[in-house]
Amino acid sequence: MTGTVRLTLAEADTLVHAALTAHGISEDQARAITDTVVMTERDGCPSHGMFRVPGYILSALRGRTTPGAVPVVYDLAPGVVRVDAANGYSPLALKVGRKPLAEKARKQGIAAMGIVNAYHFAALWPEVEALAAEGLVAFAFVMGQADVAPSGGIKPLFGTNPMAFAWPRREGPPVVFDQSSAARSRGDIMLHERDGKPIPLGVAIDKHGDPTTDPTAGLAGAQLPFGGYKGGNLALMVELLAGALAGGLFSYESSAVQPEEWGPSIGSEFMIAIDPARCGGGSAEAVLDHGEALFAQVLDQEGTRLPAQRRAVARAKSKAEGVEIPQLLHDRIAALARGDTALEEAG
Amino acid sequence: MTGTVRLTLAEADTLVHAALTAHGISEDQARAITDTVVMTERDGCPSHGMFRVPGYILSALRGRTTPGAVPVVYDLAPGVVRVDAANGYSPLALKVGRKPLAEKARKQGIAAMGIVNAYHFAALWPEVEALAAEGLVAFAFVMGQADVAPSGGIKPLFGTNPMAFAWPRREGPPVVFDQSSAARSRGDIMLHERDGKPIPLGVAIDKHGDPTTDPTAGLAGAQLPFGGYKGGNLALMVELLAGALAGGLFSYESSAVQPEEWGPSIGSEFMIAIDPARCGGGSAEAVLDHGEALFAQVLDQEGTRLPAQRRAVARAKSKAEGVEIPQLLHDRIAALARGDTALEEAG
Repeated sequence: MTGTVRLTLAEADTLVHAALTAHGISEDQARAITDTVVMTERDGCPSHGMFRVPGYILSALRGRTTPGAVPVVYDLAPGVVRVDAANGYSPLALKVGRKPLAEKARKQGIAAMGIVNAYHFAALWPEVEALAAEGLVAFAFVMGQADVAPSGGIKPLFGTNPMAFAWPRREGPPVVFDQSSAARSRGDIMLHERDGKPIPLGVAIDKHGDPTTDPTAGLAGAQLPFGGYKGGNLALMVELLAGALAGGLFSYESSAVQPEEWGPSIGSEFMIAIDPARCGGGSAEAVLDHGEALFAQVLDQEGTRLPAQRRAVARAKSKAEGVEIPQLLHDRIAALARGDTALEEAG
Repeated sequence: MTGTVRLTLAEADTLVHAALTAHGISEDQARAITDTVVMTERDGCPSHGMFRVPGYILSALRGRTTPGAVPVVYDLAPGVVRVDAANGYSPLALKVGRKPLAEKARKQGIAAMGIVNAYHFAALWPEVEALAAEGLVAFAFVMGQADVAPSGGIKPLFGTNPMAFAWPRREGPPVVFDQSSAARSRGDIMLHERDGKPIPLGVAIDKHGDPTTDPTAGLAGAQLPFGGYKGGNLALMVELLAGALAGGLFSYESSAVQPEEWGPSIGSEFMIAIDPARCGGGSAEAVLDHGEALFAQVLDQEGTRLPAQRRAVARAKSKAEGVEIPQLLHDRIAALARGDTALEEAG
């Protein structure tokens, strides 16, 4: 029971899709979730891959999410689109919003999209990568639950609030980063707790505001931003963009409405897409070639790599060899695909 | 000679303006530079205030900048404007670009501006603050000279690459941050060198790539990004936006064209402005009121403050009491205002 199971990407797709649809998640929602989950597993990010499948289902079983939600797209301005996810999951909302966002960016040069009333279980990078794969420069900002103290404070207020950025390349996958405003992801601290390992200083404070290396005390206290006050400023910026500007919720508002215990609370996101051919650097090819000159300079130094380079390696490997997931996780998803919910209902 | 001189804001304005125009800097350029310099001094940021005046003049005397440059505005797309600073200073380019950028943001919901062929001696926050004072959410990104090593590398490649963000408030000055992608500003390391003080570990590496607390060795080696690889990713993002997207130069390209010895090299900048009334959060008032709810939560915690709060305090004080600058700096600017260039030509 402690081994691993290897699945081809097609097998992983079939298994995840079957588990989701066996529990009332609509075909459209399930297709978008499955694509996101399998892509993330494929690219070597298991914490946001198939590991999340039970959470998607549990949140539906518990009546938190609307498993058949149909996102509604609003055209707010020549450069702004909004998607109301209608209490559903973020992958389908992103999928239906991506095309109008990209069209607006090409027409106006730059465009923005807010997504509200969505449950965001996923990594943020697939969202900007998809836009960069279409030749656009992209940003994404998503709030979370109140886990991180503001600079100088001791009580959780901000989410771990990642921002993601993607830059297209003429050949190969885009350059993409997706980074939390917190010093560590909450999941990472939870893994340290599970494994009985101390966390580094600077990652969290206990509930009295004192520095701690105890993951349990840190989870009960507050996480800290990365890079001191600068990370705290980025966390504040993400709250303002995803929460106030997009007309969604701040992390603390989301946490007040729904507890974090079994997956993300309802939330919102803000994205920006830019057409590199419209900003003054010449043709898209000229702008991207200029970018390549910088990447060559980075890679010319020993010990460097570009953001997402590790994911590109994992992707190539997974396409050839499939993905390897824990036996326990495989068995749980397989049971869910058979309609079994015992574990989820107890969870 | 080691004392200080107190000037009213009007006196500071007259002195700076006289010094700039005494050396061939055109009235339009001088007005924009003076406004920027005095505003920065007023807000308690002397490193980017009147201290920069000799640099503006020296760069003209040495034939680097075009002191009478007339910026040219290009309408690139419904959501994009570009300003060619024509080898002049950035304040005038920003001033002429701000209006079309704001108009586009209000019309399209979001708009972008690239500024190229500009010399950026100033802080970045006044640029986003001016847009936020008009009710817009704003970002700015500016490259620099090759001073910072990419993550994992040991040779300077990126600039200190600040990004700035501003959020309007219904009352009082906007919430604004302006932060370097480097662990410390280069000026701060130079002040440590001047004063014979060690720099903290993590700020710079020597030319062999080894950690150093010696500011001289750090300046000869490479500065480090803040917050590890995350700051490095932000530095890369700023290069791509200001350098490639806006059709400008990367920091290493700028450094190759012009040495850093006596002030900034030619460079470029990228800005984004967003109308809060067009993004789905309701009216501008509703969005800003929502922001205030978050600010109240931040300030409810002891020990916190909002970005720019310290500047707002300095501003109020300077308006009442004027600014205090070193006697030596005052005398140097006064000599420049009388047409004396001896120090600059030797410098």
